[in-house]
Amino acid sequence: MSAAPAPLLIGAVLFDGFELLDAFGPLEMFGMLDPVPVISMLAERPGSIRSNQGPSCVADSPISCVAPLDILLVPGGMGTRRELENPAFLSALRERADRARFVASVCTGSALLAKAGLLEGRRATTNKRAFRFVAKLGTRVDWVPEARWVEDGKYFTSSGVSAGMDMALGLISHLHGDGACAEAAARAEYEWHRDKGWDPFAKMNGLVA
Amino acid sequence: MSAAPAPLLIGAVLFDGFELLDAFGPLEMFGMLDPVPVISMLAERPGSIRSNQGPSCVADSPISCVAPLDILLVPGGMGTRRELENPAFLSALRERADRARFVASVCTGSALLAKAGLLEGRRATTNKRAFRFVAKLGTRVDWVPEARWVEDGKYFTSSGVSAGMDMALGLISHLHGDGACAEAAARAEYEWHRDKGWDPFAKMNGLVA
Repeated sequence: MSAAPAPLLIGAVLFDGFELLDAFGPLEMFGMLDPVPVISMLAERPGSIRSNQGPSCVADSPISCVAPLDILLVPGGMGTRRELENPAFLSALRERADRARFVASVCTGSALLAKAGLLEGRRATTNKRAFRFVAKLGTRVDWVPEARWVEDGKYFTSSGVSAGMDMALGLISHLHGDGACAEAAARAEYEWHRDKGWDPFAKMNGLVA
Repeated sequence: MSAAPAPLLIGAVLFDGFELLDAFGPLEMFGMLDPVPVISMLAERPGSIRSNQGPSCVADSPISCVAPLDILLVPGGMGTRRELENPAFLSALRERADRARFVASVCTGSALLAKAGLLEGRRATTNKRAFRFVAKLGTRVDWVPEARWVEDGKYFTSSGVSAGMDMALGLISHLHGDGACAEAAARAEYEWHRDKGWDPFAKMNGLVA
């Protein structure tokens, strides 16, 4: 009989203007795992952090905390525009990401990863309305215009907003297999887009013919 | 030239153990509207409220506040089990719902509405794993086992967790038309299940043949 697996340690990065579903869609999916993960909410300065939609959430730990994470989750949102110009934020993000087992971004969260230099030499994707803006960031990033999400080593980057849920289920499948993924999706009554290449929004936004 | 429409006033009910995506999936979709809605986070006692998955969010107003709402959003989650036995919570919910223009529930949020007596004589649905439990609540509720969401007058009740996003888009379509709904879904890069009857989870959980 094998020992019970340890719960995943997950940290989600918050900043003023983060997009609600970017953060909580993936956390909902990860939260369906057994054993239940331990989720920390991270910010440059812990406290109440206002989302792009208005509701505030509580960050309990600094991004720069040294505790190792299995998954570092980086949402997007309008607030990324400010953090792209915040060297202290980007430095803390870079250090925490370097020590994490996996780094998962949603929407323009990948812009923060790129600006922090974490995606150099890697394939990645982002929100399709913001694609042209984000694709200017990072000097050696291979930005993929048509993808629900992209996996490159320990980096899982997803397309916009709701794509984060599909990426999270992809990461669950990678970590724990298709059975765990199917169970998480069923508990959330969610129809998983299991095809990483499914992306009607690339065409809708004129990124592919 | 017509006057700009007023922003929707939306209140989301929080309680310890609320399900993250039940609350933030619909709020993400509503947040895509133009003009941007004003969202209040409501709780029996304002302050930091812990979700079922761990992260805490900030409730800024009491449920019993008299300000009128266009949409009262009621999530589910394991915490509903406790609130079903909390007469003060149910009383505040009943009063706020009675004055709201629309009441939208996700997952076992409809159990709270039923226990508060708000669904008497109405059709409603809920999470499909919890269906048999929830269907015992409310004496004259017509519980629909196979439905992504159910609309009955001002009450929009959805199936489990991710179904709340489809219900929210349905409510957007009802309020502002198919164009606004399509735009909200496109901005969230979300594939809307526009068919209220789409519900593979009813069969998966043995509720229909």
